[in-house]
Amino acid sequence: MDIKEHILNKSLELFNKKGSRNISTNEIGEKLAINPAIFFNHFKNKDDIILELFSKMTSDWESDNYQINTIVLTDKILVEMLSKVGAFLHKYRFIFKELVFLIQNDKRLKEANLQMQSKRINEVKQMIEFNIQKGILRKLTDDEKEFFVTTLWMSSIFWKPYIETTEERYREKNEQEILTHLRVLFQLFKS
Amino acid sequence: MDIKEHILNKSLELFNKKGSRNISTNEIGEKLAINPAIFFNHFKNKDDIILELFSKMTSDWESDNYQINTIVLTDKILVEMLSKVGAFLHKYRFIFKELVFLIQNDKRLKEANLQMQSKRINEVKQMIEFNIQKGILRKLTDDEKEFFVTTLWMSSIFWKPYIETTEERYREKNEQEILTHLRVLFQLFKS
Repeated sequence: MDIKEHILNKSLELFNKKGSRNISTNEIGEKLAINPAIFFNHFKNKDDIILELFSKMTSDWESDNYQINTIVLTDKILVEMLSKVGAFLHKYRFIFKELVFLIQNDKRLKEANLQMQSKRINEVKQMIEFNIQKGILRKLTDDEKEFFVTTLWMSSIFWKPYIETTEERYREKNEQEILTHLRVLFQLFKS
Repeated sequence: MDIKEHILNKSLELFNKKGSRNISTNEIGEKLAINPAIFFNHFKNKDDIILELFSKMTSDWESDNYQINTIVLTDKILVEMLSKVGAFLHKYRFIFKELVFLIQNDKRLKEANLQMQSKRINEVKQMIEFNIQKGILRKLTDDEKEFFVTTLWMSSIFWKPYIETTEERYREKNEQEILTHLRVLFQLFKS
């Protein structure tokens, strides 16, 4: 693994653990025993690291997953897909916890997020149409389609922030609940 | 209106406009032409103002609204209730936009939010049971009830942050969409 990868991995670990606000590039460099000049060669500042992690997250999702738009939503596929979503949200959890703050803070990230969001939402819309055609989902009104997509999307990106607002003793249980939550959502629109 | 109310109103206005992070107590005092010593008599710091606004929001909701737990969900009541929710979220929008950040920042606010959240969620659960008994909602599985409550809650508290992640030219339209979104949610569970 090259130095850049090392920096990204350690940053992700530390940001997930303590929040990106509470971690400095110095701290990351020290943990990896990297000379500041070399560190600076790869990343000028923390915003650059976060932007790179965002892009890594996007390509991770794109390479690792199904062709969402033409996936047939059998129960087996659904369970598989949802647990992938769960693992994915967990892997990059600092991004989801801090998303609104992060995009206000860096215009490049805001742009990257808009692009990613519009791509994902389009895929989900295609997936819904495809599964209606296949008879797996029932016919939906336009408002229902919009509700389906928005709920799927909001539940995914805000599940981590939501957990932060719940009691600590229930967190572990609540973390898992997203799977049941999304399964019910799909169930509501099945034929 | 007394000085305390003046400070709270001006703070809410400024926090909504620019985000609480970007406003100092000095700025609020200057806008109101209040002597710093008098200001300090009422609020020691910004966290105290935010905490007081949160408590004002809670009592606003409690005094201004129906007995949620025993409300009969006719279409007319539903539309009325949802537009109240919309106006309410808008009035205190900085709190919803910044919620996760704010509760990490102040233990007292975290506690106040937990109490408010648990109270509201219990009311909604009772409302659901009540409307199932009245035959207005269909019989629901436990997972469906949980989905119903969580979607209603998450859509409400995260609608403003969600809007922040969308394209600026669609914001105004998207702001309004919460009403359609929640109406579909209720429709899905009607008898």
